Amino acid sequence: MKDFNVIILGCGTVGGGVARILCDMQEVLSSRVSGHINLKKIVDLDPKTAIDRFGIAPELFCGGGRSLTKDQADKYIKELIESDDIDLVVETIGGSNDYVEELAIRICNAKKHLVTANKALLAERGKSIFEAAKNNNVTLGFEAAVCGAIPIIKTIKESFTGDSIISLSGILNGTSNYILTMMQDEGMDFHEALKLAQDNGFAEADPSLDINGGDAGHKLVILLKLAFGIETTMDQLSITGIEKITKEDIEFAEEINCKIKLICYAKKIDSRIYATVCPMMVKKNNFLSGVNGATNAVRVVNKYAGKHILLGAGAGSYETASSIVADIVFAAKYSHVNQSVFDKNTLDFIDAKHFELPYIITFETIDRPGITGLVTTSIGNQNINIDTVSHNRHMPDRAIFSIATVPCTLLQIEKAIDEIIKGNPSLLLHTPKAIPILY
Amino acid sequence: MKDFNVIILGCGTVGGGVARILCDMQEVLSSRVSGHINLKKIVDLDPKTAIDRFGIAPELFCGGGRSLTKDQADKYIKELIESDDIDLVVETIGGSNDYVEELAIRICNAKKHLVTANKALLAERGKSIFEAAKNNNVTLGFEAAVCGAIPIIKTIKESFTGDSIISLSGILNGTSNYILTMMQDEGMDFHEALKLAQDNGFAEADPSLDINGGDAGHKLVILLKLAFGIETTMDQLSITGIEKITKEDIEFAEEINCKIKLICYAKKIDSRIYATVCPMMVKKNNFLSGVNGATNAVRVVNKYAGKHILLGAGAGSYETASSIVADIVFAAKYSHVNQSVFDKNTLDFIDAKHFELPYIITFETIDRPGITGLVTTSIGNQNINIDTVSHNRHMPDRAIFSIATVPCTLLQIEKAIDEIIKGNPSLLLHTPKAIPILY
Repeated sequence: MKDFNVIILGCGTVGGGVARILCDMQEVLSSRVSGHINLKKIVDLDPKTAIDRFGIAPELFCGGGRSLTKDQADKYIKELIESDDIDLVVETIGGSNDYVEELAIRICNAKKHLVTANKALLAERGKSIFEAAKNNNVTLGFEAAVCGAIPIIKTIKESFTGDSIISLSGILNGTSNYILTMMQDEGMDFHEALKLAQDNGFAEADPSLDINGGDAGHKLVILLKLAFGIETTMDQLSITGIEKITKEDIEFAEEINCKIKLICYAKKIDSRIYATVCPMMVKKNNFLSGVNGATNAVRVVNKYAGKHILLGAGAGSYETASSIVADIVFAAKYSHVNQSVFDKNTLDFIDAKHFELPYIITFETIDRPGITGLVTTSIGNQNINIDTVSHNRHMPDRAIFSIATVPCTLLQIEKAIDEIIKGNPSLLLHTPKAIPILY
Repeated sequence: MKDFNVIILGCGTVGGGVARILCDMQEVLSSRVSGHINLKKIVDLDPKTAIDRFGIAPELFCGGGRSLTKDQADKYIKELIESDDIDLVVETIGGSNDYVEELAIRICNAKKHLVTANKALLAERGKSIFEAAKNNNVTLGFEAAVCGAIPIIKTIKESFTGDSIISLSGILNGTSNYILTMMQDEGMDFHEALKLAQDNGFAEADPSLDINGGDAGHKLVILLKLAFGIETTMDQLSITGIEKITKEDIEFAEEINCKIKLICYAKKIDSRIYATVCPMMVKKNNFLSGVNGATNAVRVVNKYAGKHILLGAGAGSYETASSIVADIVFAAKYSHVNQSVFDKNTLDFIDAKHFELPYIITFETIDRPGITGLVTTSIGNQNINIDTVSHNRHMPDRAIFSIATVPCTLLQIEKAIDEIIKGNPSLLLHTPKAIPILY
């Protein structure tokens, strides 16, 4: 094999880890591909941080380790991408904007393999990039974009390729799982747990995408394409975050032998795919209920291979970098094969509102006799079978109680709630919360 | 891509599953490789069983579905292997004998890719077969040989290839795990649980390899080669089965917050690999302690990617077949790449007796004062630090107690036991049992 030359664009937390691993393991990696994998150059606006944190040699940086202006960096990037000497580009700049999308397409058009950890880019603008990779017959490696170090992408692409995936469920966002774990184990409320996550470096200063389900949604959009061949957008996917989960919800989950987890969920039924991201009451005999802290886990049910679970670090510098390096090695070994083969899009994507799951609906109402009758009647009117009605948590000025339903759709539940509100405008103190149960 | 033609030799539980999946999924599999994967022929001495159980068309069998003599089958196999029309051979005959070894080598020499689920063959006679595959530049797929449907082979080869594995531990034998789970959950003794496993189809009529650790040992030999590049034989590996685990051991494990599991264990320290198969007291915060029944699980700790767990079905017809089909698809996609690249064997394999682990040593002695002093003194003489001495389970005619040590080697423990036996020949009623603790 001729030398396989790699450049890294963006040398932050993940890019720096990639550079460090490529330097430390050059000999082993090269022997694994029976050739040479070389890190040729790195482009970064402010190399000093990477040099200090990851101990990268300054001469590996374009500009010799000096800070670059945006224009200087662009010039270097352009030269490198167009150089015949370069085989693969690692994009660890991040962000989902025109600049990064155009850059990714330019890399493919220049016939360079592309490896990226950029889940937002692939989820929001992936179509053009996958197409560019396919048209140019280059590899697009994105293992690091979903669950950091967990090899879920390669497992679906290469290990479950002799099978048919029936359902996917997973905890794909470590920050929200850390927050829910702290609420569960330490009795914190949401805001205390969020602050702790920020103090401990598990949450960004702006944690919106982690707690509103957006980050998990990005990952699910990518997995849906990979596992089922379907193209979805963030708009199509029903996404609920964990912001509204209260201590009371967590306590009630415990009562019914569940843990609340932010679950990415997709299920194939005939030719339809239902998918959603939302907090779920996960029964304790489901493995995902025991996945705590910043750990990620994915549960895949195959037609033939049955139930599988992959668990590991969903983020982190070296953890994510390790996935990128695996993609580099894979591209070096198998680069002459077009790997952007997805199943044909023969399935319909259906809003998860139409999908039947058992639900826990929690009502917060004024406290007076007759309310259970009113509420359960409206639920029955929507043809929803009730499994149990919980004890009523009477507060000084209100009542809180939960109703467990047999499988029904969120649409049915929304209609029942509508009926309750219309018939008794002053009854409900908050919009009731419906959380599915995951067995 | 030209057509990719497959034959199956041996159409039993696994081979029949492969045939069924190849027929059912032909269109999807073909689209995944942008070509055609065809099941051309099957050779089996007694096709009727497969035809009835898996609904395979009789005309797919050499001989049209009639029973074959050994000579007839051999003649068909020879013709097929030498046919230019065949690309890949699935060997699901099983057994580790001269015939199957020579067959595997013949397949490689005829430049056909080989996919096998035969762990005994690869563990006991793998060297010649891996060499034949390498020399002929054909793919040797063996995902199905280790943990059935769990993609541990491809994960190590392709997903952790940008990393360095520090340790491996796993529950790699479903039968023994089922037995231990029944002893744990139902309070059965070993023989009751074994009988139940046989009645429920989880154990063979001759369950020796499952309960004596041999089957798990085969898998560990293969994983050692894959994860660390080292060549070991079954003789070199220290293997202890579960036959001597008693209800009392299980109860004591519970007392110290552990579950007893048959663990395959390998750890790299500097340039040395320590490995063993033996029952371990797995602490309840270690994920493996919660893996019950016939499920398999592997825990891999990487230098960069950290801790990972893969869990799934370790056996079963379609489950194992799914792994074989994935190997077929992989070979069809990437067949022009020699995939038999193992890391260079630069590490030393050391008998796990030299490896320090914390142990629980359980003594069964005559019941009289002064025994704890005698035993603990001999342990101290071997420079072993004692962590705790358990309460003494006084029986009518004997005493049973357990000593937890800080990490020490099995060699040290054996010397201590020797000293106790030599100094007080009548003291011990059985050879003490030393079981490592896995945190």
